[in-house]
Amino acid sequence: MVYLTRRERFSAAHRLFKPEWNDEQNFAFYGACSNPNWHGHNYILYVTVKGNVNPETGFAVNIKDLSTIIKEKVIIKLDHKNLNIEVDFLKNEIISTENVAMKIWEQLIDPIKALGVELYKIKIDETENNSVEYFG
Amino acid sequence: MVYLTRRERFSAAHRLFKPEWNDEQNFAFYGACSNPNWHGHNYILYVTVKGNVNPETGFAVNIKDLSTIIKEKVIIKLDHKNLNIEVDFLKNEIISTENVAMKIWEQLIDPIKALGVELYKIKIDETENNSVEYFG
Amino acid sequence: MVYLTRRERFSAAHRLFKPEWNDEQNFAFYGACSNPNWHGHNYILYVTVKGNVNPETGFAVNIKDLSTIIKEKVIIKLDHKNLNIEVDFLKNEIISTENVAMKIWEQLIDPIKALGVELYKIKIDETENNSVEYFG
Amino acid sequence: MVYLTRRERFSAAHRLFKPEWNDEQNFAFYGACSNPNWHGHNYILYVTVKGNVNPETGFAVNIKDLSTIIKEKVIIKLDHKNLNIEVDFLKNEIISTENVAMKIWEQLIDPIKALGVELYKIKIDETENNSVEYFG
Amino acid sequence: MVYLTRRERFSAAHRLFKPEWNDEQNFAFYGACSNPNWHGHNYILYVTVKGNVNPETGFAVNIKDLSTIIKEKVIIKLDHKNLNIEVDFLKNEIISTENVAMKIWEQLIDPIKALGVELYKIKIDETENNSVEYFG
Amino acid sequence: MVYLTRRERFSAAHRLFKPEWNDEQNFAFYGACSNPNWHGHNYILYVTVKGNVNPETGFAVNIKDLSTIIKEKVIIKLDHKNLNIEVDFLKNEIISTENVAMKIWEQLIDPIKALGVELYKIKIDETENNSVEYFG
Repeated sequence: MVYLTRRERFSAAHRLFKPEWNDEQNFAFYGACSNPNWHGHNYILYVTVKGNVNPETGFAVNIKDLSTIIKEKVIIKLDHKNLNIEVDFLKNEIISTENVAMKIWEQLIDPIKALGVELYKIKIDETENNSVEYFG
Repeated sequence: MVYLTRRERFSAAHRLFKPEWNDEQNFAFYGACSNPNWHGHNYILYVTVKGNVNPETGFAVNIKDLSTIIKEKVIIKLDHKNLNIEVDFLKNEIISTENVAMKIWEQLIDPIKALGVELYKIKIDETENNSVEYFG
Repeated sequence: MVYLTRRERFSAAHRLFKPEWNDEQNFAFYGACSNPNWHGHNYILYVTVKGNVNPETGFAVNIKDLSTIIKEKVIIKLDHKNLNIEVDFLKNEIISTENVAMKIWEQLIDPIKALGVELYKIKIDETENNSVEYFG
Repeated sequence: MVYLTRRERFSAAHRLFKPEWNDEQNFAFYGACSNPNWHGHNYILYVTVKGNVNPETGFAVNIKDLSTIIKEKVIIKLDHKNLNIEVDFLKNEIISTENVAMKIWEQLIDPIKALGVELYKIKIDETENNSVEYFG
Repeated sequence: MVYLTRRERFSAAHRLFKPEWNDEQNFAFYGACSNPNWHGHNYILYVTVKGNVNPETGFAVNIKDLSTIIKEKVIIKLDHKNLNIEVDFLKNEIISTENVAMKIWEQLIDPIKALGVELYKIKIDETENNSVEYFG
Repeated sequence: MVYLTRRERFSAAHRLFKPEWNDEQNFAFYGACSNPNWHGHNYILYVTVKGNVNPETGFAVNIKDLSTIIKEKVIIKLDHKNLNIEVDFLKNEIISTENVAMKIWEQLIDPIKALGVELYKIKIDETENNSVEYFG
């Protein structure tokens, strides 16, 4: 059993806020991240899969196929987008890094299974100091 | 003569577009960067100053003072903000990295001179692949 | 269950040595790290916590609170200090990265529990080539 | 129980291909990585060991000894070499990063046990976007 | 006048050697880099151009056009290739990083001029410790 | 004419202070960097030389020779040392990064000239946010 990790990147706008709260309440809890005019990040996404190495090919999975799936299911939907209002699988979510990681997991678990390996971890770096990992 | 560089960071939303153009024209030229719903980046700012080393202190400039000025004049105005609509010194500008670098230069040249050194270079990394330098 | 990691940094002096040994014995075992005149590092500290995401806020923990606790309990005690002689929670310890990681764990486990999440891992990079992880 | 990681690097040439396939078949599966004239990488190797901290020394293992073993058993055999044709422990293997990681594990497990700690993980970064982890 | 830098990457095999010398002479001068079976690197290429900012667009050059040219003229010819034997513009050259940088300059100077800016610098990182810059 | 840069690292202790000042005066000016018990850093040193490429070898300078000189003249004197009290060429200096850069320049200018190239720049990263460049 080996673990492969593919790194991809997306640059996006977002805002942390709870619709039931007014701007003051949102600012008290979320701070500057609740700015109603948005802010943004260069997010770094690490997708880790696990599987057995096929002795015929030396691969657990062809990393080109893995990269293609991540791009099709996630990156083209998030890159240069507003995460709060433009992403089908993030509708009605608070756009915390925790929630983004869990929703990316949902997008990738079946397509990655179809490649013959198992999704093991989603890791997102929001900034160089803050990151989130989700294992399902 | 030595050159000191201070690195600071800001996370912000922006959009590349020309108000005289419609969305199609903007997309044709600026691509996904013209998304009307914004996107964003973790910008990295490098401010380089030059000056003579004071033999009494070993310093060309006290880097704490330099950092304070960069934060007061630039970072608190840009971090967790929308660069197109919330920044006094970027009003009516196309928010390209080129323009942001040149406008940051204008904010810092006099306060840095007041510290006894000379602003030499503004460098901004927009992504890990794209950066801009401006020397005035 | 998600895992959040906060990165913080501290620059400090230290020396690896065993008081019962003389300088030759210390040098034979610890090498240049036993220099009696100290040396130092830019340590990078990664604090990972785990917890369930609160659906009301999208957060497992407010990372500003986590950062505040790490700074108050650890960083202000270690940054720009001599780890061998100035840190209350490192008194009488051999200042190996292993021991520093385990003692930082002790400082953080209760305050992080009070935030509603659980301390999962302490990771310290001593140099770009050497690092230590501790899981309690 | 703590986990120590030592980072080492090697620059090497390799080719992904299956001898039973002709060049077209290899290209169809492995893409540009099957180039018969080779290509190469700056591989980064992370060796993680786990063990108890010796209260007499503050060390789980002396990281100088760990580094020496990694260099002798792995790095001098791989660095500035052709992984397909010059490395005794990679003979008759498809030179995928998966296989390289598993074979490095075999080289290190016993010598690291002799140091009094246990090999926990081999991680190899092939590029900044692709990496493999192996836990035995 | 601003300076824009685009980062691109290529992974390639190479060998440092002088055809007039035998293997012993090559090894004496070039060391392990002269390995007749090749080795390789993840090269990082930084292309810096300078130009005036067009006030109509906010751009000195559209960085998508710059990236396209670098890929067409350089990256597709070098990536996953053997630099000694597969690259038209490196034929009959000693494949030192110095020479690669100078030859990349020749490939890019005219196409970049056609974009309306001037090529200012080619920088290549061969490893994390060794790099070369060329200004024409 | 090309520019080559070699990166080397050293971990050292230091203190910023002026002997004529008492601890309060030193703290007022130098802040935590004046801690009488020292602190330390993982310094990163970049040595850039310039020279013409020898068409016979493809090299401006053999980077192994450059690295050897930097290690002999600088790194072995600074690494795992106390910069204030153990370094011959830093005696009686205020140990600011500015002064360290200028004194390293003095150590390297003649030996590098003897290699047939010219020392162009010394750059030191003291932390990831602060760096100094010196061009003589």
